[in-house]
Parts: sequence; structure tokens; C-alpha cells
Amino acid sequence: MSTVIKNGTIVTADLSYMGDVLVEKGIITEIGENLKGDEELDATGCYVMPGGIDPHTHLEMPFMGTYSSDDFDSGTRAALAGGTTMVVDFALPSPDGQGLLDALQMWDNKSGRAHCDYSYHMAVTWWGEQIFNEMKTVVEDRGITTFKHFMAYKGALMVQDDEMFASFQRVGELGGIALVHAENGDVVADLSQKLLAEGNTGPEAHAYSRPPQVEGEAANRAIMIADMAGVPLYIVHVSCEEAHEAIRRARQQGKRVWGEPLIQHLTLDESEYFNKDWDHAARRVMSPPFRNQKHQESLWHGLMSGSLSVVATDHCAFTTDQKRYGVGDFTKIPNGTGGLEDRMPMLWTHGVGTGRLTPEEFVAMTSTNIAKILNCYPRKGAIRVGSDADIVVWDPEKEKTISAASQVSAIDYNVFEGKQVKGLPRFTLTRGHVAVHDGELRSREGHGEFVKRTPGTPTNKALSKWKELTAPRPVTRTGIPASGV
Amino acid sequence: MSTVIKNGTIVTADLSYMGDVLVEKGIITEIGENLKGDEELDATGCYVMPGGIDPHTHLEMPFMGTYSSDDFDSGTRAALAGGTTMVVDFALPSPDGQGLLDALQMWDNKSGRAHCDYSYHMAVTWWGEQIFNEMKTVVEDRGITTFKHFMAYKGALMVQDDEMFASFQRVGELGGIALVHAENGDVVADLSQKLLAEGNTGPEAHAYSRPPQVEGEAANRAIMIADMAGVPLYIVHVSCEEAHEAIRRARQQGKRVWGEPLIQHLTLDESEYFNKDWDHAARRVMSPPFRNQKHQESLWHGLMSGSLSVVATDHCAFTTDQKRYGVGDFTKIPNGTGGLEDRMPMLWTHGVGTGRLTPEEFVAMTSTNIAKILNCYPRKGAIRVGSDADIVVWDPEKEKTISAASQVSAIDYNVFEGKQVKGLPRFTLTRGHVAVHDGELRSREGHGEFVKRTPGTPTNKALSKWKELTAPRPVTRTGIPASGV
Amino acid sequence: MSTVIKNGTIVTADLSYMGDVLVEKGIITEIGENLKGDEELDATGCYVMPGGIDPHTHLEMPFMGTYSSDDFDSGTRAALAGGTTMVVDFALPSPDGQGLLDALQMWDNKSGRAHCDYSYHMAVTWWGEQIFNEMKTVVEDRGITTFKHFMAYKGALMVQDDEMFASFQRVGELGGIALVHAENGDVVADLSQKLLAEGNTGPEAHAYSRPPQVEGEAANRAIMIADMAGVPLYIVHVSCEEAHEAIRRARQQGKRVWGEPLIQHLTLDESEYFNKDWDHAARRVMSPPFRNQKHQESLWHGLMSGSLSVVATDHCAFTTDQKRYGVGDFTKIPNGTGGLEDRMPMLWTHGVGTGRLTPEEFVAMTSTNIAKILNCYPRKGAIRVGSDADIVVWDPEKEKTISAASQVSAIDYNVFEGKQVKGLPRFTLTRGHVAVHDGELRSREGHGEFVKRTPGTPTNKALSKWKELTAPRPVTRTGIPASGV
Amino acid sequence: MSTVIKNGTIVTADLSYMGDVLVEKGIITEIGENLKGDEELDATGCYVMPGGIDPHTHLEMPFMGTYSSDDFDSGTRAALAGGTTMVVDFALPSPDGQGLLDALQMWDNKSGRAHCDYSYHMAVTWWGEQIFNEMKTVVEDRGITTFKHFMAYKGALMVQDDEMFASFQRVGELGGIALVHAENGDVVADLSQKLLAEGNTGPEAHAYSRPPQVEGEAANRAIMIADMAGVPLYIVHVSCEEAHEAIRRARQQGKRVWGEPLIQHLTLDESEYFNKDWDHAARRVMSPPFRNQKHQESLWHGLMSGSLSVVATDHCAFTTDQKRYGVGDFTKIPNGTGGLEDRMPMLWTHGVGTGRLTPEEFVAMTSTNIAKILNCYPRKGAIRVGSDADIVVWDPEKEKTISAASQVSAIDYNVFEGKQVKGLPRFTLTRGHVAVHDGELRSREGHGEFVKRTPGTPTNKALSKWKELTAPRPVTRTGIPASGV
Repeated sequence: MSTVIKNGTIVTADLSYMGDVLVEKGIITEIGENLKGDEELDATGCYVMPGGIDPHTHLEMPFMGTYSSDDFDSGTRAALAGGTTMVVDFALPSPDGQGLLDALQMWDNKSGRAHCDYSYHMAVTWWGEQIFNEMKTVVEDRGITTFKHFMAYKGALMVQDDEMFASFQRVGELGGIALVHAENGDVVADLSQKLLAEGNTGPEAHAYSRPPQVEGEAANRAIMIADMAGVPLYIVHVSCEEAHEAIRRARQQGKRVWGEPLIQHLTLDESEYFNKDWDHAARRVMSPPFRNQKHQESLWHGLMSGSLSVVATDHCAFTTDQKRYGVGDFTKIPNGTGGLEDRMPMLWTHGVGTGRLTPEEFVAMTSTNIAKILNCYPRKGAIRVGSDADIVVWDPEKEKTISAASQVSAIDYNVFEGKQVKGLPRFTLTRGHVAVHDGELRSREGHGEFVKRTPGTPTNKALSKWKELTAPRPVTRTGIPASGV
Repeated sequence: MSTVIKNGTIVTADLSYMGDVLVEKGIITEIGENLKGDEELDATGCYVMPGGIDPHTHLEMPFMGTYSSDDFDSGTRAALAGGTTMVVDFALPSPDGQGLLDALQMWDNKSGRAHCDYSYHMAVTWWGEQIFNEMKTVVEDRGITTFKHFMAYKGALMVQDDEMFASFQRVGELGGIALVHAENGDVVADLSQKLLAEGNTGPEAHAYSRPPQVEGEAANRAIMIADMAGVPLYIVHVSCEEAHEAIRRARQQGKRVWGEPLIQHLTLDESEYFNKDWDHAARRVMSPPFRNQKHQESLWHGLMSGSLSVVATDHCAFTTDQKRYGVGDFTKIPNGTGGLEDRMPMLWTHGVGTGRLTPEEFVAMTSTNIAKILNCYPRKGAIRVGSDADIVVWDPEKEKTISAASQVSAIDYNVFEGKQVKGLPRFTLTRGHVAVHDGELRSREGHGEFVKRTPGTPTNKALSKWKELTAPRPVTRTGIPASGV
Repeated sequence: MSTVIKNGTIVTADLSYMGDVLVEKGIITEIGENLKGDEELDATGCYVMPGGIDPHTHLEMPFMGTYSSDDFDSGTRAALAGGTTMVVDFALPSPDGQGLLDALQMWDNKSGRAHCDYSYHMAVTWWGEQIFNEMKTVVEDRGITTFKHFMAYKGALMVQDDEMFASFQRVGELGGIALVHAENGDVVADLSQKLLAEGNTGPEAHAYSRPPQVEGEAANRAIMIADMAGVPLYIVHVSCEEAHEAIRRARQQGKRVWGEPLIQHLTLDESEYFNKDWDHAARRVMSPPFRNQKHQESLWHGLMSGSLSVVATDHCAFTTDQKRYGVGDFTKIPNGTGGLEDRMPMLWTHGVGTGRLTPEEFVAMTSTNIAKILNCYPRKGAIRVGSDADIVVWDPEKEKTISAASQVSAIDYNVFEGKQVKGLPRFTLTRGHVAVHDGELRSREGHGEFVKRTPGTPTNKALSKWKELTAPRPVTRTGIPASGV
Repeated sequence: MSTVIKNGTIVTADLSYMGDVLVEKGIITEIGENLKGDEELDATGCYVMPGGIDPHTHLEMPFMGTYSSDDFDSGTRAALAGGTTMVVDFALPSPDGQGLLDALQMWDNKSGRAHCDYSYHMAVTWWGEQIFNEMKTVVEDRGITTFKHFMAYKGALMVQDDEMFASFQRVGELGGIALVHAENGDVVADLSQKLLAEGNTGPEAHAYSRPPQVEGEAANRAIMIADMAGVPLYIVHVSCEEAHEAIRRARQQGKRVWGEPLIQHLTLDESEYFNKDWDHAARRVMSPPFRNQKHQESLWHGLMSGSLSVVATDHCAFTTDQKRYGVGDFTKIPNGTGGLEDRMPMLWTHGVGTGRLTPEEFVAMTSTNIAKILNCYPRKGAIRVGSDADIVVWDPEKEKTISAASQVSAIDYNVFEGKQVKGLPRFTLTRGHVAVHDGELRSREGHGEFVKRTPGTPTNKALSKWKELTAPRPVTRTGIPASGV
């Protein structure tokens, strides 16, 4: 069966133009005028864009004996409802010595329920010969080229500088990309203890314990280590000017670094933590925490100028009951918020709707840029003959008020509750299947497939060439003295 | 007749992939595997890229009673020889009150000889109601959307801040892009007089008279005025860290500004002016002058990080005889150097060859970015069905030593004399015509056509929306006092 | 008669220590323990500091047929009441061709009433041979070494870049310091007309017409011109991050530039202009206008880090009646606010009281730094044997609420109305005379003397040496060709 | 016996003026005209300045079973010969658990031979309750308020982030200043092993192993940790733009951070390591290594603008024989160079002699600034009645060529060999004793005394006030839910 999307304006990261899009067997097979298909989707007045890619989710993530409440079922349904057609989840080995392949097996067991396509980033949570060896298999056999490192969560996921340096070098050799969660875990841990000791036990103390400086420092450190290691670096959830400044400065020196702000940090601020309602504040607890408007402005400017590249969510949804684990001790509040369903409409409303971003830039930041970084472009992130038919038909006039009451996500609240958005999907197609049809969710459990990726992006190749050209070389000497001792 | 380019790797600003390209009637009509055509061009081992666009040339430019020595004939032949398939020249009205349309007529008279396609930027060299009115005609009837302003050349082309502000606002209203030559003309004029008075009469004094600060100041000023006027700004021939810093800073604040370094400034330095041979030094006299290596590094980093967008030449070729007008008085040396023929191989060699740039970035900087800024993408700057067949088949293994003896340009020297390049065109197609065929120049005089452009790029639209949203609004007051006098 | 200040802590820009201060004939004659004098002032619990120097006042300044309402009488009384013992006023020649010496005569006629010592800056409001020649006399005979240039007030005080460059060079030769009011006058004038045309006629439009960018641009331009001219530069009333950034950047490049924020910009923000009461808003109209908190934070950080050097007032007081000239047309509201009386307590409260500044830094910024820049240190700005006894005995526990009702200034309002201050003068001595005695004003009209200054500060000398060392030099060539024509 | 210095120009950090200086019992007792004394020193044509303070020396430092070759005898003689009258050495406890007081005892055993006054910085080389407790004694009883932390020398002196954070907080509570050696030890260690493995065994590999990024990262990290801990920070041996940029950025944010470049990094560059002579290169091995000219320029600009505060030496002199321990393995070359004797003449020649610095700034950077930071001003660092008579009479016309052959230091080479200097001591007085008399060294072993210092500088107090004002406070909530589990 073929589907044709009629009368819309195709918008890609590159350009916009009128055209129909024909989809057959999950693939875009023709773009042109007056196309015909078995099924017709009317895109009049709409933008036909590559479906969103959210490169930062934690679905059914194990936590304190339970799991984050959106799994590959509800999470990917929420994604599709908001126009996102691919998610990238983090496969996290236990730092107690679990191997990478073993962890991937666990993730495979969960992802079978996905309604849209997905891929994984591999986390490096400890270091040793086994990890070193398995990384090659992960890249070459499993098609996962991106390796995440936590600089925070001391005593748990955190790795030391020497481990990170070793791992980064390995990632570089394999043609992959290094990722970091950038916060100084030592300082966060000590500040947290100090705050608790001083009676700062509420959710606002979570924000006090992770000030922007802590994030900026770690971002700067990761950049230096990546530079020494000769590997491209992608910094997740950039929330503040300090981290953004470090990225900007690195890029200005020709370094290959990308930054990923979250839609939450772009549109919500720290005042949420000062809400008198404990639940309200605790539901917003995530790392890094929300910041003030100075930081928001910095992030928007980063998107406008190209120093930041991708907008994600770090979707990691815990219910209010789960959040209440941390009553009386903010360090026990599970870290994470939702966003998968709202990322695209919120970014459109506050980005394109205000004139900060062009529609083309919107596509770049929600889809195309990350597809290129992850090396799955143009299979994903493109409206192009031969590409997967992951498409969102975007109605710029459609409006709603965000509310937990009407959301797809499994949790009982929404951090964007009450926000007006203008710009929403009319249709969302995942590999050709119309999962969202004018307000109705028709997605299919298990429809989603794993997206394998290959290493060796053009950026990797260029960086390797430059590193080789500028490698240290010994001075030729005659007459070296004998040792002095 | 159809032509097919076989077995190459297609490289665009977006991605690289194997594919044949079929060209019919000057247009790309198919991209795929195993295509057939009447004529076959073997691209084995080559990159098939959009032809270069040089947005900054001065062909047959009137000067001191004579003209720059490369005209639309020799200039565009040189362009094609180096893989460039479109040039954008500056139509300069006389500051003595010549109208815009009148100046365009003069340029039309010259451009008929062009061997490749071309467009114009319109210069605003004085200000008045006639200019204001004609700008609309220039945009809407003539398809020229880019307006250049000289902040230097006091007493000649230079405009004052209030004129520039008025013109920028007008450009913004019309949906166009403002361009500037950024140097503080007052200071340059005074420094020049001072240098002459002190006995600094040689070509090196040209560099002394236009230090980086003079350029950085003007760039910063133009950015501020554009911001106030609400118009996107394109700064030509960015030669130094100071101007680049101003651009970077503006972009970091979300301003819509692009910078254009020249291939000369990327690869040649100020030591050229200290050559003992007067001719050698004088041949390198251009504005801004060559800078030291600190500035070169800054420019490369700008290309790598995206704070600079386009590589051009400011091709304005004067013969040694013409240069000698300035013996004994550097201010009389005609400003300008060549570069059209060498831009692409020099940038490839020093950019892609070293690992600073990816091949995709090379395409972006030499062709696609400027096509988008000028709003002639994807007619130009793309390998795409429906695009003009302006194509260069790039052989990355082909080498030569640059030399005036073997160049196409009409002048008797070359500022890159003796430089080794690796990476040269095997074929260059201009709207389907194979103008360069494996070392042989088969271009046709008069083949080139004028490229009309339309205003209102996505950037213009976004900027207008933002400006409207943030426009000053009066405070509503009750009880305003009567005047105090 | 001798006066001794007993039991206080002497605080200078350098250090703090316990000590008595003996004053005889207007001079500090001894510092030590257990000193005796005819009159004893009890400084127990107080800081004994150099009296404040306000380097930026406009007393009895001619304006639209009238004068600013604080003259050398009321203005200097207000100064003393707030702990300031020296003011530097601007002698402004009419731009219609009035000579410098002629203008100085007019200022001399007014300043005879001063209650404290004073000096002048000389303004350069037009350019010509007469100005060039008289500058030498002004420096050498009149002891005025600082020359102010207005980059705003188009059609009135504003000078062009070439005039500024010529004047700066002259100032440099004479060993003086260049001063600028940094705002782009062309843009301000055009924005003002546009705002009026759009119906923005209220006081808030004054702020709209002079956004931070306009100031930042001009500061950057002045810095470049001063650098080319080889003269140290002092930028008055730095109100925003943009101008501060330009200064910071210049200093980071080793340039000799100082910035002067005003106490108003440090403590008041733009919301004042949105007050519903026209009078309230109009009374705050000054150039540059108040800014938002981002800019305030920038200025404080500048003082803390040393990139800004001096806190002044730009005291130029117009009554409400005078402000009402501008009802219906904001461009007719006289520009200026008061501050002389409140600068020291406001800076102490918000600087030292919060821990932003040390007491020693407070002295540096209110007195010592400017005394050094103006080359009247250690006659002024010091607690030192031989220095003028311009002393404030500061009671850090004394509090008040600022109010027009109780102020010394001649105007009928106070922009700091209602602000609490903690830290006020117990005694203020002007050349030994106790002008403020525990809340009582005992100043004497005509007591103030003109402070002559000499050119050639260490900074001037160092800069000259560096400029000479790095001056452009001609290349020696053999075989220069004959001219080409 | 009294000594009078006649007819010189007294130069302090504040100002310069003619005056005689009378010295009695090691103290300056009078400054004035026509003073008399038992001994007269003719300062005609000279500058009478506070003696230099070198806050960074390692005399007789234990190393690999031997000691650095300049001890408190030869080292302080070298200091006096070059116009330096006080040194501050680092007391280093063994990281194997040696206590602070124990280490101080070892240093006391060595310092008895000093010819000039001295103080110590205390190093924190491991962390534990004993250290925490002894720090109080070190500050309060021993008068040592500055605590050094090594971020490099992994497996030896290096401390981890959490240890540093704990120690910084402790220093802050005690009113002291934190010091750091800023290099990322993990990365240095790994790079070193990699270089050796690749056959880079020569002295140049020392530089390769510690690129500027490694230093910039650590400086940035230390600044963040100090900011969180609320302690002023002093960064030793700032050698590169990256570290300087971190300091500049911190200061621009109002942080209390000082940077100390070394005279070596200001005047020597990395080309020294590429010398064909192994000994030549190895003698220059120190950490951080010499950098290129871009970094030199950055450091000079830092001194000129105030973002860097103090010029030191890190004098740690090893003989050629000792250096040869590292033949075949650069990691075994003892780190350190000399400089005590040459710091003042080299800085004068390249700073004041070129016009980069004023004479007053020279005094500030070599003496007064550090005396204030260390809280021993005005006992040291001043020409002031009551100050210690640590004085250098500086002859700006005196010239020499630096040579190991004629130096006082105990080692057999000099890194400044062959450099011309202009500006040298005519006399150096240490607490009144004329230790250098017109070229003759008359110093006395054991004359030097320990300089006790007190905590709680004005900077400490201001910072504490600010931190208290902005401390995190809990939100008051009603209706906190019960725990969710």
C-alpha cells in the first residue's frame, strides 16, 4: 500500500518547497507534484518535515529497585504523539563490573515494545580490559558508535579522568563519538552533604547542589580530555552559560564539539524549585537543574548561532510516588522529567513562533543535525527519496494547552502543565505507518526497529588527519650525554 | 544531448554518496546508479560537487581612468578553470549621484561576455531619495537583493553612519541582505597621510595604514547598525581576528551576521609586504591587507566552527604596470589581487588536505552557504534533481604548482606563485556545458546568464518576526503634566 | 589652628590601620598615635578615608536658555554633605566656534562659589587650528590635561571620527588623557526620530533611543581611535555590558583604557522609565539611560575585577519644571540626574555592605584611582603626610533613608528617594576645614580652589615608549621600478 | 648605626617622588629631604624601590634521594644579588602521611642559613583529620596562611577534587588563601606514558606531555572549586593563555582569583626544547613548560591589564648532572629552573624598558601586590616609615649580559644565558643591612628571619560577607507529603 502526503510545504534543514511525498513500504519513493497513492494525507497549510529524533531518553531505566515509568511502549507512543519518530536510549552497564554486551542484552529485552525506531548510546560506567575489548564489538557488530561517560553520580556511574581519557582514546580509534554528562561529581557530592547538614533538605537544595559552575567545569574538562584524545565530543543536556561558554570557546579553537540543550532548560526556570508545593518542586528535579533566564537566553543564542546543535529531552519519567522517595532528603528524589511528547511543539512555539529560529533551523535541531552526528543520515533526518518515511506533517495553526490529563506519557504530571503551544502534528509517520492521524494515535507496539550505525563520520576522518599531521615528533639529537647518575 | 557523470562520489554540503549524475538541457535530471547519457564523463576516484560560487569579484571595474584587467571574459574563464561556476560582481554607481539602475546598465554592458553564470550585488555609494526609490526596483524587477556599503575609501565610495543606517533599514524592509566593506575610512585616510609624511611610501605602508583594529572597529559598528535596523548582515573580506571576534560576539547574541574570509587571507601573510622587490609587494596590495599567522588561524577556526560562512576572493586583478601607478606613493597602488582560478584548489589543499575541513564543509563554504544566503539555492549550490548543472568533478589526486605562466587570468603574476596544490577539477560544467575537460578549457563566451534572486529568505522572515515581537511600545500614562515652560 | 582626628581606622586604597591624623593649614602634617590638636574630632568606630572625588559633574551647565539647577554653590555643598571633597566639571565651548580659553573663562566665572576644591576637564566640541593651538595652553598654563569628546548629541556637541582622531593625537602629544562620551550619535538621532514618528513620545522612549548596543559600538570605536593615536583613554559613564566588554577586551590586549560607571547605573534599573507617573520617569532621563540587572551585575564585576576603575555621578540636576520641557517629546527632556550627595553612601551600602568590595577598594574607586589618572595624586586621594586634608570620617553604622525633603541639592526630587543607606560621613574636611560636622553643614562659599594638574603620567610615558618601539618603519628596497604610467 | 639613601627617586606601587630614606635598626624611620645618616648610599639617577619578593621558590627541596641545588644559603644570596629581599618557600609534607607541623620542622632546619627574610607556603599533599586539625595551628601559631595544592604529579603530590574541595573550605574558614599548581595530573601521566611508548623520550617530550590545555583545564577546575568553597585563590606559574583566560573569566565574574606568571614564561619560549643539545633542552625542563609567543603576549597583557598580579620564578635549581637522571626518559628529568637572581632585571628590561609597564607597576608586580595578598604589607613591599628596610636601589642605566659564569646561584648554567639586561641593583638592603653594595655581595648567612603572617585579609572578609549574604536557604513549605515508599 502506498501513502501520499499532498499539498504540503516540505521543510528540511536545507530548504522549503511545495511538493507531495509518496511513501511505499516504509520508504520515501518519490517527491514531486500531483503524486498519487492508495492513501492520501492532506497536508494543506502544513509543513512536511523529517520526524523528530530525540537522542536522549531513559526508558524503563532501572533505578533504586524500580524503573523509570515510561518504557519503550508508553515512551515511544508519547514520542510519536509529539512528532518524534526515533529515540536514542542509553544502555547502562552496572558499574559493578557488568560488560557492555551484557548490558545491551538487557536493553534489547526492553526495546521490543517500541512503537518507533530507536538506537542506543553505550555508557562506559567503569573501565578495564573487558570494556576496552567489547567496545570494538559494540561498534562493529552492534552498530553503536556513541559512548556516554558520566562525570557525576559519584560512587555509582561516575568515571575518573584517567578512565575517561583511556575510553575517549579508544572511542577515537574506533571512529566513534564520545558523550559526556558534565557535572563535577566530587563537588556535587560534597555540596549535597553540606546542604543536608545545614537543613537544606527540600527539592530546591537539589538546584543548590549543582550550580552552573559545577557543570561548566566538567564540560571544560571533558573538552580538554577529548582534545588530547583526538575524539569528537558531544555534551548532553547543556543547561547553562558556563557549559555553553566552554563549548563555544572550544569550537572557536577549531575543536569538534557539539552541545545539546534540553527543551526544559530552554523554557522553564529555577523558580519552579521554589514552589511552595513539595510535589511541584520535586517533579522538576533533574540534573542539571533548571536555571535562570540568563542561561535560557544563552541557550537560545547558541541555537541561533550554531554553537549548540541539537534539542533533546533527557526523558526519564518518574511518578509523583517515585519522587516522594526523597521527602526529607533531596538526594533521594529520583532525577528526571518528561518531555518526549512536548519537545517539538514547545520548541516550535518558542523558537519558530517568536522568530528566533527559521523552520529550517527547527528541522536541523530536532532531527537532521543529530542524524548526521549519529551517522544515520539520510536514512533518518531527511525528506529525500530513499529515506525512511519518518515524517511529521506539522500544522502551524493547531493549538493546545499542555496537560497531564490528556498526555500519552505514563506519569501523572507534566512539567509543562498549562503551557500554550501553537504548532502540532497533524500526522506522524514512522517508517510509513501513520501513527498519528489528526489527533488519533494509531501506533503499533513492536513496530519500532533498531537503527544500526557505522563509525567513521567525515568529522572523525578530518580530525584524525589533523591529529596525525600535528602529532609530536622527537627531535633528532647527536651527542646525548650518558645518564648523570 | 545528455551528459552523464559516472562512478564518482557525490559530495554536497549535507552528505557524500556514490552515484551517477545525468544532465540534460543544463539541468540535473537524474541521480542514481548506472545512468546512461550521450556523453559520459568518467568521475572514477573523483568527487562530484556543486560548482564553486565566488560572491566577491570586481571584473572590468572602472579605476583611475582604466579598468581592472580581468573582465567578464577572462575572469569567468579563470573561474571555470578553477572549478567556480558562478560569480557575483559589484555594480558600483558613481558617488557623484549616479542612480542604481544607471549603474546596472553599465554592468549589463560588460557582463554579456561571461562564460559562466553570474549575479550582482548593488553598491550604495551615496544616499538620497532616488536611491531609496530605486532600491525597490532593483530588488523586485532586477532580482538583486544584496546591497553593499563601503565604510572605507573616504571621499569616494564611503558612506556615513546615518546613510548606512537609512540604507540598512530600507534593505530590511525590502527583504534583502546588507553587505559591508568594514574599515574605518576616516582613520585609514589620516593614517595614510601621516605615513606618507613620515616617509613611509612603499607598499608595506599600505598594510600599516589599515591595521586589524581599523577593520574590527568597522565590523563592530556595521553589526550594531544592522541590529538596530533589523537587517541580516554579510561582512565581506573578513581578514582578522578583530573583525571575526565582532562577528562571533554578534552571533553569540543571536544576531544574524555572516562573515566571508578570502582565500588570500587564509593562506598568505603580511611578510609578503616586506619583500625587497617593490613589484612583489605591490602586487599583493589589497584592502584589507594580508595579516599575520594569528589572524590566519582565527579565520580557519571560524570556518571550522561555523562563525565564518563563505570563502571568496575579492578578485580584482591589476597588472604590474597598473600597480606601478603607486611607485613613490602607496596610496596610488590600485587595490586588488587575483584568486578566482585558485580559490578552490587552495582551500581544498589547505582545508581538506590537512583535516581542518571535511569535504562536505568545503562544499558548504565554496558554494552552498552563499547560495542560501543569496537565495538562489537550490538552483545553485546543489547536486539535486532540478538544479542547474553547475558541477565540478574534483580529482583529489591531481596536483600542480600554481604559476602565472600557466594561468587563465589576464594578469602577469599570481599571488600564489609557486604554491603546490593537490586537488583540482577534472571537469567543470556550467549549466551542463563541459567548460573544463580534463585540463582543456572549452568554455564559451556569452554562455553565462544572469541569476535573478528573490528577497525574503527564511532568515529575513524570522528576524522580522522577532523585531516585531520586541518592538518598543509606549507606556500608557494617566496624568501627564502640562509642559513646564 | 590644628585639628586632630582621633581613634579612627585610617583606610586608604592600600591598607587600613589605626592612627590619628593631624591637620594644619589645610594639610595633613602627621599620622600617628596619640596626636594632639586644637580641635579634636572623634573618629571612634569610624574609617578615616580620603574625601571622595567626583570626576564627572555639570554644575550650572548652560542648557536651552537656562542652566542645570545645581551650581558650584549648591552642588559642592551637596558633595561635601555626602563625603565628596573634590569635583571635576566639564568646560564646554560652544560648537559654533568658541575657543577653549574663552570657555574656560566662562567656567571660572561660575566656580568661584565652590565650597570644595575642583578641577575641569576641557571639552573639544569642534575642530580647527585654533583648538589645536589652544590645547597646548590649556595643558601647560591652565593645568588641565583631560579632554572630553562627545560621540553623541548630533548637530550639537558631537565630533566626527576624523576630528576625534586628530584631537586624540594632539592630546597624546601633550601628555594628556582623552575622554569620551560613547554613544553613536547618528543612530541615536535617527532612532529618536523614528520613535517619535511611531508615537513613542514618553520618557521611556529616551531609553529605547539609546540601547546598549549604541553605547558599546561607540566605546569600541573610541578605543580603536585612541589606540591608533597612542593616547590613554578614559570612558565616562559606562552603563552597560557592551561598553564594559569593549573596555575589558581592550585592556586584555594591553591597551590603556579606563571605564567609569555611575552610581546610578550600579543601583537603579530601566524599570524606572516604565513608571506610570510621567514626572517620575522623566526625572530619571539621562544618557546613557538606566539598564537592566544584567548590566548592573556586569558593572559591579568590573569594579571587583579592576576592569572598571572609578565611580562617578554625571551630576547634572534639572528640576521637575525643567524636565517638563519634554512633555510630548522625549527628546526635549533635559538629560541629567543628581547623585553627588548620595554616591558615597550608596556605593558603600551596596558595595562594602554586601561584601562585593573591600573598604580599600571603596577608597580606590571613589578617590584614589581618579586622583592618579588625573595626576593630582597624592595631593588628593591620599591620607598621607603632605596631602591636602580632604578627608571623610566615615561612620559605618550611621543610617538614613534618602529623601529629596532633606537633601542639600537644589532640585525638588531625588532619584534614590526611599533608599536605605548604612554608612555616612560623620565629618567631612575640605583642605582642613570641617565642612560637615556630625550632621551639620558648615561649609564656606568660595573656599574651594582650582586644582592644577600636570601632564605626562607614568602611563603616558610608558605608552609613548611602546608606540615608538613599535612604530611602522619603511622597508629598504633596491631597484624600485619607475612609475607605470 | 643609621643608613641614609640619598638623592634617589622613590618608586612605590603608588607613585614616584624624590626623597631620601633613613634606615635605623632595620626599619625605615624617615623619608624626606636632606636626611643624614652614619652611612650614606648615593642613589643619584636611581630608583629606590621596595625589595623584590619572590613568592615561589623551592630551596634545598628533597628530590629523588637528593636535593635541589640552591639552598637557603646560595638561593637567598642569589635573590639579594638580583634585588630580591624576601622569598617564600613551599613546605612539603610527604604524601605518605607526614603531618604539616612535622614538615615545617624540616623546613625550619634548612632555613636558618637564609641571607634575607623568608616565609613559607604550606603544601597539602594528602588529606585527613590530622591535616584538617593542624591547619589551624599552622595559621594561628605559625603565621602561615597560604596553602598549596598540586593538581599534577599523580601518585606523588597530587590531590583529588574532593580532597581539594575539603581543604579549600578549611582554608576559607581559617581566613587563608588557597594556592594551586594547575595541571591535570591524570592526563599528564597518561600522555607521558604514551609519548615514551612512541619513542618520544627526549626533553621536548616533556613539553608535549603538558600542553596548554592541560593547564587551562586545571586552572578552570581549581577556580570553580574555590568559588564553591568560598576561598580566595592564587594560581602559581600561569604559563599560557588557556589558564590566563580561565583567570580572566573568573575575575570578570567577580571572583577573587590571582594569577602569577614566571619571568621564564614571559621571556623564553618552547623553541628551547628543540635545541639539538640535550643538556640545553633538559636544563629548561620545568612544569609548566615554556610556551610559544602567543602565550607570552597573553601573559604580558595580563600584567598590563591587571588580570595577572605577580611575577615569580618557581626557582628550583638542579645541576646538569641532576638533569641527566632523565637521559632516555624525559619523565626522570628533575623539573625546575633557576631565576631568583634574574627576575628583577629581566622584568625591568622587557617590561619597563619597552614601555609595557610603568616603574610603579614593576614595583607592584615584583613586591607590593604579593605582600598584600600574603598579608605582610606594609611591613614588606613598601617604602614607608615603619616598614622593614628591604630596599633595592635600582640603577636603570646599569647593564650586563647574564651568564652562569658570573652568577651567584649554585648551578652550572643559566636559562637566560646571553641575555642583555639594562636595569640592575646598585644597592640591596635586607632589613637595613646593605647586602649588595655596588656590585659587591656583602650578605650574611643567617641574617634572614621568618615572616609571620596573619589571616583574614580584607579580601577574605569581603568574600565571607558576600557568601553569607547569598547562601542557600530552604524554602518554607506547608503540606510536605509523606514519603512515597
